[in-house]
Amino acid sequence: MTHPDSPTFTLGELAEQLDARLVGDAGRRVSGLATLRDATPDQVAFLANRAYFKDLPGTRAAAVLLTPELGEECPVARLELANPYLAYAALSRLFDPLASRAPGGIHPSAVVAEGARLGERVEVGPQAVVEAGVTLGDEVVVGPGCVIGADSRIGAGSRLHANVTVCHGVVIGERAILHSGCVIGGDGFGFAHDGARWHKIAQLGGVVLGDDVEVGSCSSIDRGALGDTVIGNDVKIDSQVQIAHNVQIGDHSALAGCVGIAGSTRVGKHCMLGGGVGLSGHLTLCDGVQVTGMSLVTNSILEPGVYSSGTGAMKNAQWRKNAVRFKQLDDLAKRLARLEKSGRGG
Amino acid sequence: MTHPDSPTFTLGELAEQLDARLVGDAGRRVSGLATLRDATPDQVAFLANRAYFKDLPGTRAAAVLLTPELGEECPVARLELANPYLAYAALSRLFDPLASRAPGGIHPSAVVAEGARLGERVEVGPQAVVEAGVTLGDEVVVGPGCVIGADSRIGAGSRLHANVTVCHGVVIGERAILHSGCVIGGDGFGFAHDGARWHKIAQLGGVVLGDDVEVGSCSSIDRGALGDTVIGNDVKIDSQVQIAHNVQIGDHSALAGCVGIAGSTRVGKHCMLGGGVGLSGHLTLCDGVQVTGMSLVTNSILEPGVYSSGTGAMKNAQWRKNAVRFKQLDDLAKRLARLEKSGRGG
Amino acid sequence: MTHPDSPTFTLGELAEQLDARLVGDAGRRVSGLATLRDATPDQVAFLANRAYFKDLPGTRAAAVLLTPELGEECPVARLELANPYLAYAALSRLFDPLASRAPGGIHPSAVVAEGARLGERVEVGPQAVVEAGVTLGDEVVVGPGCVIGADSRIGAGSRLHANVTVCHGVVIGERAILHSGCVIGGDGFGFAHDGARWHKIAQLGGVVLGDDVEVGSCSSIDRGALGDTVIGNDVKIDSQVQIAHNVQIGDHSALAGCVGIAGSTRVGKHCMLGGGVGLSGHLTLCDGVQVTGMSLVTNSILEPGVYSSGTGAMKNAQWRKNAVRFKQLDDLAKRLARLEKSGRGG
Repeated sequence: MTHPDSPTFTLGELAEQLDARLVGDAGRRVSGLATLRDATPDQVAFLANRAYFKDLPGTRAAAVLLTPELGEECPVARLELANPYLAYAALSRLFDPLASRAPGGIHPSAVVAEGARLGERVEVGPQAVVEAGVTLGDEVVVGPGCVIGADSRIGAGSRLHANVTVCHGVVIGERAILHSGCVIGGDGFGFAHDGARWHKIAQLGGVVLGDDVEVGSCSSIDRGALGDTVIGNDVKIDSQVQIAHNVQIGDHSALAGCVGIAGSTRVGKHCMLGGGVGLSGHLTLCDGVQVTGMSLVTNSILEPGVYSSGTGAMKNAQWRKNAVRFKQLDDLAKRLARLEKSGRGG
Repeated sequence: MTHPDSPTFTLGELAEQLDARLVGDAGRRVSGLATLRDATPDQVAFLANRAYFKDLPGTRAAAVLLTPELGEECPVARLELANPYLAYAALSRLFDPLASRAPGGIHPSAVVAEGARLGERVEVGPQAVVEAGVTLGDEVVVGPGCVIGADSRIGAGSRLHANVTVCHGVVIGERAILHSGCVIGGDGFGFAHDGARWHKIAQLGGVVLGDDVEVGSCSSIDRGALGDTVIGNDVKIDSQVQIAHNVQIGDHSALAGCVGIAGSTRVGKHCMLGGGVGLSGHLTLCDGVQVTGMSLVTNSILEPGVYSSGTGAMKNAQWRKNAVRFKQLDDLAKRLARLEKSGRGG
Repeated sequence: MTHPDSPTFTLGELAEQLDARLVGDAGRRVSGLATLRDATPDQVAFLANRAYFKDLPGTRAAAVLLTPELGEECPVARLELANPYLAYAALSRLFDPLASRAPGGIHPSAVVAEGARLGERVEVGPQAVVEAGVTLGDEVVVGPGCVIGADSRIGAGSRLHANVTVCHGVVIGERAILHSGCVIGGDGFGFAHDGARWHKIAQLGGVVLGDDVEVGSCSSIDRGALGDTVIGNDVKIDSQVQIAHNVQIGDHSALAGCVGIAGSTRVGKHCMLGGGVGLSGHLTLCDGVQVTGMSLVTNSILEPGVYSSGTGAMKNAQWRKNAVRFKQLDDLAKRLARLEKSGRGG
């Protein structure tokens, strides 16, 4: 979809921006990005995955981002560079209509407490609330309906989309992107039991997000019980993710949708958790661990690599037969061992 | 529960509305709906499932919705029709106090951008925000605290409950119902890795919802990376559901709570996904697929039917023994094959 | 983290509050809580778990909460009492900077409908909405951006953090704590199918929360179809939890993050559901049931105890081999039985 407000560029400008070798008309103007298959003649396409090579000959794109060795195959203008997927990422940001909007200032309906410190070119949207003691760095955007709790600090260039909640005393680094409905700094889940009922443990810690962190829609990161919940630099968190109190996530890790991490677990750097993965509390995952979708991790993982649990879907009739056998598995194993023994013995 | 503001009707009026055969006093006035067991003498009950037949003789309801062949068994007045469950659905909407509220107009505290186009009898609740370029069809209700992002379009008769977020450039059909806390059009989860760190891929696509779509509390539907995320007509989505970028859901499909669907997966028409089901990315599910609760689907499903994965809960002590055997399963299978071979050989 | 606004106390005051035996300087002033390891000389630490006994000799805390039998081992001042973890919970609430804030009254930007009944010392934050017919008990705090739907009632001493949504006709007991982004009373997921398409069943029931209930960030509790969804007293619900229509949860039960409970299921008293647990609809769990993380429960549980399902993560290469065998499990079991029979026969 080419957005009506998308900026336009010439191929020459793009080649310069991307440091790419342009083969084609430098003056040709383009207004958006698309796949090889869907691109119209005013759009740029990209070839980053050999699976889509088959779409190259028929593309109607104005130009294609690709590696030099595929250049000869391209039926239209081309921008040659080493990593077309990275170049696609860079172009996507260039064509993003949000990125080129002028900051809107403080909307008259916003409530900004006296004494809040706002940097240069800060935008606070309609109906937003900025409580006392808050610090917003330069060019921070606080979307409509957001609430920034007392004494929180948000670093320069961060953007909070609509209806984000940042609770009190939260620290967020630079260039963060927080999507609508996410909650940073709600209470962790802590109670003491007296044998009959629960007694709340006030959650006195905070949440610290590094630089370049992204948090998806409706995700929640709870504040620490005593120390802080800590999210490293360049950590990317998808939608509907739950991060419990005192969790630590190392730099550059990525968590897909619906991940849940229980209290005090530490995830290393450069880890990747698939959708719906659950990590028990008080575990350690070392750097470079990948866990596939919907796996349950109940023990620490101290060696990098790919880990999995669960079983894939099959027809229900077949599944019923197998699932009932799972409950007999220990018995089956013992019977097998007996048979082996009797066989050897006989 | 009969709500204090519920409207009341006579049995004669209900018979006419439902095109049912009334056996009983057409002038009797009723003020609500309940189960056969709980109904008070001013309420209507229904018998749609044979499991509740046992509750029929003792019911105190004013009248019962049921099929003609059960009519003789009914101890009170009755409304006979072919599908009592559908009739119950129709009556529930008739008795809904929300449905009969007069539209509230534009609340003075709402912020509606100049140039937004609002149809007839539109309601925009307190503290809501309607950004520039938005189009709201006739009789759209935007609840308190909602934010409607720039250039979005919402079809006639749609109702957004409180604190819903619709991001920029989203298209929503007619008669949609969006529940509180849901987010339509947050960014999809897209990043390019340069070997050391992540680079954001701006999500330039949008979200398109068909007519008669319902989205539950705290659910999120992410915008597409290039093309749109597309939800068909009459698709029903429960609470806490996550739908990633560029997913397509066919008409009349239903997704129960906590479902997660990864990027670019296509779900057919008339599909039903149970609670907590996870679908990997880039899959195709054909029309008429049902997946039972908490199943993981990692391969496309090209034949209609019921699919499942996982195993049901058992006592922990028993489970521990079986779960540990799961890690030996391949070994057990090989040992069994060896035994079979030696047996045949002997 | 010692919050800048934390109140301070003398050890003597703490001993009196906790009914503890103080061994040390009653006049020493402390300003916060920490672990044995992290405590600075102005903080109190606690020893509630023998696993941390090793941190006792080296602690720099001003004083330690511990049991009398460990008193002699303590290198600093001590507060002796029977249950140090409960005492820690009590102190955490004492040191909570939120607890000592003066109520803020009704913010001028809040929209409070005429006829809403507000108790003494109620606070309604900026941009919040309180609809017609609402009753707020004494000392209720409604955070910034919250929406309280028509005719709802919230009991004395309850605190709603920012951006909470309470829909119409919801009843909440005393001392509730509702965290940001949670939604109480959205529609349950109910539709009748006519063979071609879905027809909405209006959700005419409500939600009733008992006293001392806590609900985490971004959790949702749906309203009943006819009767109410009922959450007992002292029930603690973590973040990202989904509770469907007409569910009943017994007193003192605790639900960890990402739990999903389908419609009409009844959970007993003193139950504990681990993170990501899924309960099918129309089940009964008796009192005292514990279910471990990410288990799927598809049958009622009528005996107290610990229940589990699923399998833990292992290396992907190993997992692939075992997971494929799971699909052969019924076949393996039959082959084993045949071997046993032939062995006995021979």
